Amino acid sequence: MKIYLAGPDVFLPDAIEIGRRKAAICARHGLTGLYPLDNAVDLSAADASLAIFEGNEAMMDAADAIIANLTPFRGPSADAGTVYELGYMAGRGKLCFAYSNDPADYAERVARSFAVTKASGGHLIDDDGLTVEDFGLPDNLMMIHTLDLHGARMVTPRQRPLDIWHDLTSFETCVRLAADRAIGKSG
Amino acid sequence: MKIYLAGPDVFLPDAIEIGRRKAAICARHGLTGLYPLDNAVDLSAADASLAIFEGNEAMMDAADAIIANLTPFRGPSADAGTVYELGYMAGRGKLCFAYSNDPADYAERVARSFAVTKASGGHLIDDDGLTVEDFGLPDNLMMIHTLDLHGARMVTPRQRPLDIWHDLTSFETCVRLAADRAIGKSG
Repeated sequence: MKIYLAGPDVFLPDAIEIGRRKAAICARHGLTGLYPLDNAVDLSAADASLAIFEGNEAMMDAADAIIANLTPFRGPSADAGTVYELGYMAGRGKLCFAYSNDPADYAERVARSFAVTKASGGHLIDDDGLTVEDFGLPDNLMMIHTLDLHGARMVTPRQRPLDIWHDLTSFETCVRLAADRAIGKSG
Repeated sequence: MKIYLAGPDVFLPDAIEIGRRKAAICARHGLTGLYPLDNAVDLSAADASLAIFEGNEAMMDAADAIIANLTPFRGPSADAGTVYELGYMAGRGKLCFAYSNDPADYAERVARSFAVTKASGGHLIDDDGLTVEDFGLPDNLMMIHTLDLHGARMVTPRQRPLDIWHDLTSFETCVRLAADRAIGKSG
C-alpha cells in the first residue's frame, strides 16, 4: 500500500529528514510512504510552484491512502495545503487517515487567538460575529467526519507533545491503522 | 449546471440571507446554486455535525462545479472546511472556481499576524522557523494551481472591498465564468 504523507512538515527546516523518518516508519509496517516534492524542486525556477503542484497531484493519484498531519498551522485549523490534499484524496475514494499533535477542541483553539463570546442565540461567535463551531471536535467538521467515514477517526495524543512538529507517535498510530487495512484488503 | 456554494458564509449572522443572494445571482445566469446545509440542521441534536457533513457531501456529489469563497478566515489562509470541499470537488473531477475578497499575497497575509524574517538560505520563515510560501500567490499553491488546471484562475478584486464578508462582486465574476463553461458544454 502506497501512502501519501501530507503535512506542513515540508515547511520545517529539517523537512527532508522528517520525510525520511516518516517513510522509514511506513517501511517498518510494510507500507510505502510517498513524501511531497516541495523540497525536490528548484525554487528559483519561474514555474516552481506549478512543478510542485503537478508533482504532488501525480503522487496523490499514485497513492492508495493519505496520512495527513492536521496539527494547527498559523491559526486554529490545519495547514490549508494539507486540508486541500485530504479533500482531494477523499474525492478520489482513497483511504483517509490523519493526526493532530494538538488534542484541543476547535472552540478552545480559536479562543487562544480571538475573543470568543456567546451570541444572544447561545452559540459561540468570534470578534467578527462569525459562528465558532462548537461540536467538541478538534477542527472543522468536514475534515473530522470524512476521516470517520472514509478511513479512521482522527488520531490525537492525550497530551500535546513537547515538540509538536517532530513527535511522530500519533503519526505511527496512523501508519498502524493503514497497515491493518492493507492486511484486511489482501487477506 | 448545479454549483456547490462553499464558504465560511455559513458562519455569518445573516448566513441564510447571503445564501439566498448567492443563489439568486446563479439563477440570473441560468445556473442552480446549492448552498450548504449548516443552517438547516437542528444544532442541539447529538449527531448535528455528522448530519451537516452527510448533507454537504451529498450536495457536492450532486453538483457539477464548486464556487469556493477563499477569503482568509481566522488567519492567513482560507476556511479549512471550504478548502476541504475544494479538494473534494477537484478529486471528483468537478469544475473548480474560487474567489478571495482579500487580494494580498500569502507572504503579506502571514506578515500581518506573525514575525516573518529571512532565513540564512534567503527564504522567508515565520516565528517557528517554518518556511513561508513566497510565490506571489494569494494562498497555498495547491489550492491556487488546482483552480488554474481544473477550472479558472482564482478571482480577486483589485482592492479589498469595504465589507469583505458581504461584497459579492468577485463571487459574481466566478458565476459568469461557470456560466460560460455551461454554455460551452451544451453548445
